[in-house]
Amino acid sequence: MEPEQWLVVSKRVSDSVVHRLSLYLRVLESWEADGQRVVSSQELAGGGGATAAQVRKDLSVFGSFGKRGLGYSVPELADRIRSILGLEREWRVALVGAGRIGSALLEHGGFGDRGFSIVAVFDVDPDKVGRPWGGSLVRDVRELEEAIRDEGVQIVILAVPVEAVHSVMDRAIRAGARGVLNFAPTTLNVPEGVVVRDVNLMMELEALSFALSRGPDGE
Amino acid sequence: MEPEQWLVVSKRVSDSVVHRLSLYLRVLESWEADGQRVVSSQELAGGGGATAAQVRKDLSVFGSFGKRGLGYSVPELADRIRSILGLEREWRVALVGAGRIGSALLEHGGFGDRGFSIVAVFDVDPDKVGRPWGGSLVRDVRELEEAIRDEGVQIVILAVPVEAVHSVMDRAIRAGARGVLNFAPTTLNVPEGVVVRDVNLMMELEALSFALSRGPDGE
Repeated sequence: MEPEQWLVVSKRVSDSVVHRLSLYLRVLESWEADGQRVVSSQELAGGGGATAAQVRKDLSVFGSFGKRGLGYSVPELADRIRSILGLEREWRVALVGAGRIGSALLEHGGFGDRGFSIVAVFDVDPDKVGRPWGGSLVRDVRELEEAIRDEGVQIVILAVPVEAVHSVMDRAIRAGARGVLNFAPTTLNVPEGVVVRDVNLMMELEALSFALSRGPDGE
Repeated sequence: MEPEQWLVVSKRVSDSVVHRLSLYLRVLESWEADGQRVVSSQELAGGGGATAAQVRKDLSVFGSFGKRGLGYSVPELADRIRSILGLEREWRVALVGAGRIGSALLEHGGFGDRGFSIVAVFDVDPDKVGRPWGGSLVRDVRELEEAIRDEGVQIVILAVPVEAVHSVMDRAIRAGARGVLNFAPTTLNVPEGVVVRDVNLMMELEALSFALSRGPDGE
């Protein structure tokens, strides 16, 4: 298939379906840990904030799962969702900006379990460069391209100020990164074949403010 | 208007429109700081990752702005967007969980400028309770309801483990909170009149993994 066709395929699956798959996986894994072998779409729905019909519809996008009236096999469905989400492989990740957002990510743990290996951390601050950070040493951001190539980095997490984010992203993509998780308060335009997710905590608060302002308690 | 009607009104405006309004506001504010008085929809679009037509369409949802061929007045449009987003008032915010996510939020700064006042911080850890945190002292989470009532908290930021998040949220809502920003890896169901936003950093990475797995470089 041509790259363009692939992009069409992935566009068809909405963000909210992918989000719910992540939630179903979390439910399945907690039940896997408890030794439960079978789960109904109703049970899956409860943990994932959805309805049973939505669970069946979400899963049907990716093929046929489970047996009518018998439910889903917990380990089998967990494996299938991990495979759909691309979590059965290693993703090599670089973090640019060794500040608190990076620390929050590190504290979250579970990175490695999900196959996300942070193989390089960068900063501009000479006081941070060379210091240990989560099992590796902070590198100078000037080494970004070289490190992305040498370490085979696919995903970059950009926790840098908004003034720096466009140039850092361009450099990372030119060096071979294909996925970008952006924490700067701007929307990044990426070339075809590159995927970006913007996370902005202040904008989440602004969305709350917007919704609350329109509600009966907001005015 | 009845509460139900208000909810319908706010539902009609999609999350992505609200997100873009936040971005336009950032562009406008940087130009306001530079003394620029007039902006075209084309210029607004560039900074916000949209097209000029999209800018006009987004703004038209909220009434008529600017003059054809003359562009928008920067301070006037900034004020209008701040008003639409509900940022011309104070929002009283409580943070539950005095960990790194909370610190990342605090480091972000700009909270107060946007009208979000963190008026209380809670934790379960006896080592953290009583310590200073961003201008206030960390309180025991057992005091949550009382503090929410006394401080008139409208928004709670939940940076607590997934096991705790449902009960903490229920308590906050019963005490009067109307907006929830959730960092635990689960989807929270809230009663009518309460607004929730879920932010999950690992799920953002999973969404990247999904998209990259379907692309030409992912297989």
